[in-house]
Order: sequence, then C-alpha cells, then structure tokens
Amino acid sequence: MTVVAAGSRGGRSQDVRRGNLSSLLTYVHVHGPTARSRLTAVLGLNRSTIGDLTGELVAAGLVREEPGRAEQADRASSGGRPSYVVTPESELIQVLAVDVGVTSLTVARIGLGGAVLSRRDHRHRRAAHGHRGVTTAIATVGAELLGEIGGEVTVVGVGVAVPGTVRRRDGQVRQAPNLGWEDAPLGAALSDRLGLPVSVGNDADLGIRAEHMRGAAAGVADAVFLSGRSGIGAGVIAGGRPLGGRAGYAGEVGHTVINPGGLPCHCGSRGCWETECGEERLFELAGRPAGGGLRGVREVVAAAAGGDVVARAALENVAVWLGRGAANVVNVLNPEVVIVGGALEEVFAAAEPTVRAELETAALAALLEQVCIVAPHLGADATLVGAAELAFDALLGDPLLDLSRCPAS
Amino acid sequence: MTVVAAGSRGGRSQDVRRGNLSSLLTYVHVHGPTARSRLTAVLGLNRSTIGDLTGELVAAGLVREEPGRAEQADRASSGGRPSYVVTPESELIQVLAVDVGVTSLTVARIGLGGAVLSRRDHRHRRAAHGHRGVTTAIATVGAELLGEIGGEVTVVGVGVAVPGTVRRRDGQVRQAPNLGWEDAPLGAALSDRLGLPVSVGNDADLGIRAEHMRGAAAGVADAVFLSGRSGIGAGVIAGGRPLGGRAGYAGEVGHTVINPGGLPCHCGSRGCWETECGEERLFELAGRPAGGGLRGVREVVAAAAGGDVVARAALENVAVWLGRGAANVVNVLNPEVVIVGGALEEVFAAAEPTVRAELETAALAALLEQVCIVAPHLGADATLVGAAELAFDALLGDPLLDLSRCPAS
Repeated sequence: MTVVAAGSRGGRSQDVRRGNLSSLLTYVHVHGPTARSRLTAVLGLNRSTIGDLTGELVAAGLVREEPGRAEQADRASSGGRPSYVVTPESELIQVLAVDVGVTSLTVARIGLGGAVLSRRDHRHRRAAHGHRGVTTAIATVGAELLGEIGGEVTVVGVGVAVPGTVRRRDGQVRQAPNLGWEDAPLGAALSDRLGLPVSVGNDADLGIRAEHMRGAAAGVADAVFLSGRSGIGAGVIAGGRPLGGRAGYAGEVGHTVINPGGLPCHCGSRGCWETECGEERLFELAGRPAGGGLRGVREVVAAAAGGDVVARAALENVAVWLGRGAANVVNVLNPEVVIVGGALEEVFAAAEPTVRAELETAALAALLEQVCIVAPHLGADATLVGAAELAFDALLGDPLLDLSRCPAS
Repeated sequence: MTVVAAGSRGGRSQDVRRGNLSSLLTYVHVHGPTARSRLTAVLGLNRSTIGDLTGELVAAGLVREEPGRAEQADRASSGGRPSYVVTPESELIQVLAVDVGVTSLTVARIGLGGAVLSRRDHRHRRAAHGHRGVTTAIATVGAELLGEIGGEVTVVGVGVAVPGTVRRRDGQVRQAPNLGWEDAPLGAALSDRLGLPVSVGNDADLGIRAEHMRGAAAGVADAVFLSGRSGIGAGVIAGGRPLGGRAGYAGEVGHTVINPGGLPCHCGSRGCWETECGEERLFELAGRPAGGGLRGVREVVAAAAGGDVVARAALENVAVWLGRGAANVVNVLNPEVVIVGGALEEVFAAAEPTVRAELETAALAALLEQVCIVAPHLGADATLVGAAELAFDALLGDPLLDLSRCPAS
C-alpha cells in the first residue's frame, strides 16, 4: 500500500491531502478496523498527519475512532502505547449492489468495508427479461431496500454487474447474448428511477475485482476469474492491473470457439465454450429443465453424488470442457491463479480429477506448473461485492466530495 | 515521449542524468535523425541541457551531430535558427539479432536506429534441430558476420527470438514444441560461444515489440502480433504494456484447443489452433512436402492464384481456421490492432474474404467493430528487429555503461 502520489500531478497540497484521505479510507475499507499506528506504518505518514486525516474522515461521518488493543507489532511501533482503531462506518455509508443473472437478480445493501447488510434474491419471470423489465425489477427491489434505512444513512451510489459487454462511461450494455440485450441503456434508466449515481460493469470483471481486493487473488499480479452462469465470462488482472482491452470488453472467453462442429450459441456463432460448459448445457445433458440457475446446478451435483448416473455423466462431460477451456485461458494468459466461480465452482468441486486431467493434456507444462485453480473466497457473492466496489469508487477516490451535489457521471 | 523520471527514485542528479541520456538516445534510436530543437520539445528539457546530453553521447560514440535543415515547425520553435541534427551511429554501434525458425534461422547485424546492415539466412538440416546444433549454427554464422566489421565498431550484445516459452533471466528455452526442445540453455551456451551478452525472447513477443515501436501498432495501447510459422504464437500489448503473465509465457495461442476432435499436436494435446492453421497443415492439405517454410507458403499462394484448385482449397481451409482463431483472440483481448505475421500474412492476403467471414461469425460485434486486422509494417523482419531491440536494451537503458566491462547478466 502506498500513498497516492497526487502531489506529483502539480504538487498542490490540496491534491496531496485528497490523495492521502483516499489512501486512508481505502485502506480501512479493504482491511477493516485498523490501528492508527498501523496506518502510520503502511501509509508512510507521520502520526500527526494520520491524526489530522482521521479527524477529517470522522467529521465527514465516514469512519469512527475507538480505543483498541493494538497488536503486538503495532504496540512496538507506537512505543508501547495503546492505539486508536479506525473503523469504517459500515452502517452509515452504504451502496446498493446489483448482480443481474439470466434467471435471477440479487440486490443488496453493502456497507463501507464490504459487508452485505441486507439482500433480496429475485427470480426473473421470462417476460421480465427485457432490459426494461429488469430495470423495473431492480428499481422496485432497490426501493424496498432503501426503505429499510433511516435518515442518518447515506447511500452513495449503485453498482450493477451484468453478464455482457458494458460501455463504462454511461452504463450502456452493448451486448448481453444470454439476456438477449443489445444496446440497453441500463445505467441511465436506473439512475432516473433511483435518483442515485449508477455504474454498470461486466460481471466477471467485477468478480476478479472483488477477489483481487479481498479474496483468492489478493496480492496476485496475474489472475483470472471465470464467471460461470448461464454463460461464461472472464475477468482478468494482468501485471497487477485489470485487463480491459480497447473498450473494456476483454475477457469474452465464453464466446471463444472451442468446438466448431458444436452447438449453436446465442451470439450467432457455434461451438462457443459456454455452449459446451455453461449451466444450460449441464441441465440439457442431465435431462433437467432449462433455467435452473445455481440452485439447479447444485441439484445435479447432489443427484450425481447420490448415484444418479445421468447426472454424473452430465457433470463429467461438462468437466471435460471446463478443463479444456481453462487450459486455453492458462495458455493465453499465464496466470498464477484461476478462480472458478458460480456454476463452474460446483462443477470443479464435483469433478476435479476430470478437469485436472484435461488441463494436463491441453495446457503447456511450463504454464500449468505455475497456476492454481481455486474457488472464489467470496463464494457466490464475488460479483455482488465487486458491483459494490464500483459504487464506492467515487467516494474512495475523493472522500470529501459531496456526492449528493456531484453525482458521478 | 516523456523523460524517464529517474529522479523520483532517489532524486540523485546522476540518476536524472542517466534517465535523460536514456530518453534522448532511445528517441533517436526509434525516430531516426532528429533536430536538437525537436528533442528540446519532445523531451521537455531546455536547449542547454539537450546540448550537454548530446555532447556526452557524441563523446561516447553513440550519436553524431550534423548541421541540418530543420523542419518548419522546428525552425519556428528554435527562433528561425537552423538546428543541429542528432543521428544515431548506426554503423558504429551494432547488435547481432537472431531469429530461430523451425526450418531456418536468420542472423543479422543491426545498427543503432534499427537498420539491418547485413544478414545471413541459414537453412537447418533436420539433424541440426537439436538446441546444440542450432547453437553451433548461430555461433558459426554470427562469427562470419562479426568478421565483416572493423575494430572501430562496437557490438553491444546478441538478441535471439525463439518460437517457445523462454525464461528471460538466463535465456533458458523452457518449451519449444515445434523445435522439440525442452529446457534448452540457449542463452548461456551462446554467450559462451560468442563472448557477448545474449538475451533470448519469445518470437511473437519480439514481433509485437518491434511493431509497437516502429510498425503497425505504433501508438496503439492494445495490440496483438500473431506470429505464424510452423506454429502460432501471440505477442500482446495490453494497456500500453507487454502482457507477460506470471513468468512471461503468456500468448501461447497456438496451443489453445479449437478443434478437440482434430489432429494431434507436438505439445501432446489435440486440435490446437496451430495444428489447423500452421504452415505444416497448409502443406499437408496442398499435397506438398513438409518443412517448406515461408517460401513454401508463398508457393502455395502462387499456385492457388495460378488456378491450382488443390492449393486454393488448402488456402481456404486454413483461412477458415485463421478467422476462427483470430476471433478468439479478439473476444479474449479486445485489441485495436491484430497483426498477422509470417505465414498468416500470406494466408490473410490470399483469402481475406474467408478470414473476415469467419471473424464476423465468431467474434462478438461489439469487439469486432473496434479491431483492424493488418499485415506487419516490418514484414517478415518484425521478429528479427524485435530481437535486436532486446540486445539494445542494456545500452538504451544506461547509455554510458561500459558494456565490455559489464556484460548483461
């Protein structure tokens, strides 16, 4: 953790102060309650500066200070004195986070610090799949959640995860083949409905963001989050930074051709990875109805464990394709960690030997020996937590910005 | 172009001076002879500093100054006075650049500034494919080229491009399936033989490096170089920086599974992209002998243009796979430019409509609309020029380093 070098962009003390406030608030947001003495050490600032910065954040209602028992190392660095602990105001500073799936959506209130305070899981009806229907559903559920809180709470924004390519500037969903959306103005429509700044991002990009910040890829410079839902997307950290490509659309691994003679895909192509390895393929092979979502995947896994040979064969089939596709990801990106999320986590846990056997066949040894395949530490909430991070961006970047007067554009 | 902010790593004037010398020498190396007044503008330094820095580089024999007619813009910025032109000493400062292919290798002397001064194209015999045989061939041809030059010339190092995964620290080739090499100590062995510092890199990584510096991807932040030889590799620039992955092995697109029921690959897998789209597949489909190299590819293209239906069908078949694989690259990386090099350049030129039709089927529209597919501006020499850049790295990073006493480790 280093202090934002805002001073280098002009050296003005106001920029330096803003950068330091941002660094301090971001640190406690990511790491939780932290002794002042520890902040002094990790931010490389002196005690009195940390005291001043904390005071400003307390006055703004973003953190509170409590006397705390500092850890051994912190006691040493503070000369044995007890240190105040700086704690993010999780209950007072909140965002709405939204995770849009194909058959369901989740809306949650998430507090500064990353805790899920309240949530609603909402099942789509087919008729509601259009982006207008989904916008209405989000706005309705979001209003319910906002109705739970008192006037002392500030909601600083809304972050939305969508399985598709998203224009970040205005939250326009360019293509979401599994939702059947093209050029859906989700960000603008939702902002109108909720009266809050809304940011929209790709689900896999937000999954890797959350796992890189607080999960299985913390401290890792090269990592991939495979988001397995109806489709498959990848969020990528390369060289410590998000891999976006020209417009932020990188990571559409679900639409890479892996079986040219295979099944037709929503995207108009054929034999895309997600047609062989997505939830719907598993349901089809297992002889179950479409649209079962994560719950349906878990039912197939449970059936296979209970001796259902059709379910077992379906899982093994999909596991082969998971291994092949994961090998492609490894060969192209040489990651240190590949996180298999959503339905893919269930498939991996249930048929790991099959996945690994395919990986060993298809990934080059020099790359395979460097990678760990793991489940998300944040479980099924990785994407939701990532959506919250998107909504916290403006506040964390400039903690004293009055968001009610300056909504994010 | 900005001045290296060496001063921020300690603020010592020696670091600043070294950074400025590096910036100036790198600028003329990349852009060629440059008026002093232009250097003043692009490096953001005053006239007297530029004069001092140039003087040091002249004294070190790295550049020369000649009175020149400055361009209009430069005349204006220099108050109408003529400006001296700073020119890299291309004849006096050289490297050996080596491009190792499967059926041939090229060794060249390349001068500061990037000009190829002399070259030898050397065809492998099959028996010489082992890394020891190739090391001997490079050393022999390299010694011939070094024998051409007089004592006034300084050769600062050797750069080698290899179609495989390379450990950059010591030039160990980890895996080069098409050469049949595993853990070949090419860098160390060649350094022993030639008595010069040797750096080894992946051929596609060096191709994108050259094209990003002086070619089709100049000024582009997200670009891919597809190196089509016996196999296929990708060199990637993502967000303005090389995409390496954990160990620098990223970009092994040739070994991504694209046709699971397809042909066995050298790597031990089956249906890898390069088994469907590499040179050897083209030769096989066209009924021609294996190992024809780029010349053989051009013969197939010429035959197809002359009405040979078998050659035409072979080209069309391979073009379909080129389109599919390129679509996968586009979907995963969202690049602005994809450069098709080597054999792929010939296939693309001869069957562009087929390649584009497959791209339109398999790439997502939102990503496809952002990408240009182009030939390398440096032609078949992109990889060779990239290898030379590797050899120039130490000099450009620290121009006054005495390389004869401090060989790169």
